[in-house]
Amino acid sequence: MTTSTTPDPVRIGVFDSGFGGLTVLRALLPQIPAAEFFYLGDTARLPYGSKSQATVARYAVESAQLLESYGADYIVIACNTASALALDAIRAAAHVPVLGVIETGAESAAAASATRDVLVLATQATVDSHAYARACAAHGLRSIEKACPLLVPLIEEGWIDSPVTREVLRIYLEQAQAEAQAAGLALDTVLLGCTHYPLLRALLQEALPKGITILDSAESTAQRVRQELEQTKPLRAAELGENGTSSAVCHFFATDSVDKFRALGSRFLGRPIEKVELIDLGG
Amino acid sequence: MTTSTTPDPVRIGVFDSGFGGLTVLRALLPQIPAAEFFYLGDTARLPYGSKSQATVARYAVESAQLLESYGADYIVIACNTASALALDAIRAAAHVPVLGVIETGAESAAAASATRDVLVLATQATVDSHAYARACAAHGLRSIEKACPLLVPLIEEGWIDSPVTREVLRIYLEQAQAEAQAAGLALDTVLLGCTHYPLLRALLQEALPKGITILDSAESTAQRVRQELEQTKPLRAAELGENGTSSAVCHFFATDSVDKFRALGSRFLGRPIEKVELIDLGG
Repeated sequence: MTTSTTPDPVRIGVFDSGFGGLTVLRALLPQIPAAEFFYLGDTARLPYGSKSQATVARYAVESAQLLESYGADYIVIACNTASALALDAIRAAAHVPVLGVIETGAESAAAASATRDVLVLATQATVDSHAYARACAAHGLRSIEKACPLLVPLIEEGWIDSPVTREVLRIYLEQAQAEAQAAGLALDTVLLGCTHYPLLRALLQEALPKGITILDSAESTAQRVRQELEQTKPLRAAELGENGTSSAVCHFFATDSVDKFRALGSRFLGRPIEKVELIDLGG
Repeated sequence: MTTSTTPDPVRIGVFDSGFGGLTVLRALLPQIPAAEFFYLGDTARLPYGSKSQATVARYAVESAQLLESYGADYIVIACNTASALALDAIRAAAHVPVLGVIETGAESAAAASATRDVLVLATQATVDSHAYARACAAHGLRSIEKACPLLVPLIEEGWIDSPVTREVLRIYLEQAQAEAQAAGLALDTVLLGCTHYPLLRALLQEALPKGITILDSAESTAQRVRQELEQTKPLRAAELGENGTSSAVCHFFATDSVDKFRALGSRFLGRPIEKVELIDLGG
């Protein structure tokens, strides 16, 4: 007795340890404006960037499974640390396609760099995994990977235009530049290997020599999601946004305080977040 | 057929979200040198200082229960955030005495302050709980509670003698001083309300006006543990350290990388940590 003239929209699960992945969701919304999005921030266990491979993989697999249980047709790991340390584990556990942000980030660097020498700024865990170095090498790029453990706390403190943050950036970039010179690299591209870092883009542009391109993987990841979805499941015009309107429904889930998620998350998403559901992943 | 001429040593469980609580264990060792210590760092879920009351209470209760399962006769919550947010929950769940660091810290401030006006530096979650303000008020002290979210990351980055850390401290202290002046307080005592902060004691002394006393609760907590144990269970001379030797056996447990625990933990404990056991708290 039910008539279904409108098929279900494609469901996209987006996962991060916290809020940074909302910069990826922000890029996804205009790409696939009629999709239904499920965003999970594992805020009770953040940050991932200082933790071990085994722990990050366990956390990330649980989160991906939760998104699949909500009916996600496609999962985006919008967290560099989880993409670097746990992509294989998540793909092994999931029954739907899973995309990380490392590969798409390296691809965009390959498209942008003339010197073929790239600087990757990332968390300690991402750097230790050397996932970016491998992904860059696969595109014929040489890379310096620089861990910047203070940037996430500075951004979450809201010091995104502070002299302290400028000085911390100066120190990290100076160390990276020294390493690049010692290795004979001529950096012309900086890849932001943490979804928090786009909030420091203006400060970074100031701190870097002219002519350096700054890339983050949010945009390239969003484009790839759209391309892959088109290949695996033909999308309707509305889902692909050809009419230019955005009717995306977003559901937000967090493992810690939903109030904090609303407040901090809106800064990353660039629009207000109203309802957030508290989830228990058993941690 | 068994003869037991030497009774079991008293077993003391010490718990923190990470490494900072090792400064409390460090103070306990000479106080009760023949005790057997069980130290648990919930490193897979740190930091607690930015998380909600419900999440911190859940984590801390699980950790206390684990220590009790190892036979702890007494549990020390060597973490200001867990003491501030979860002491009642832990006491309700535990079957042995439980001591936090807030009350002992406030006591030492009450003994030291002439003006009766105290500055408490702590994590965001500890400040939001106002546990120190209540504990200080119970001793007739007025207090300013200042959240310092960047200090733990700076200490864990190892920047304990960096101009950046000096500048961050200057900003935090200037904000606190402005708040104290507006409230008409004459601060003469600074209470370190986070077990990481003792590593910044030298920098703090430099940044503060002369004549300000800096206190941390490690020493006063260790003394209180000894006093309470003497009241509830008469200790033998060796356990009380009257012979001046330290034969304490320490067992270390962590929920994330044991290698990182050994490396970072030794800095807080002030002596090498050899064996650390990986524990799964289900998180």
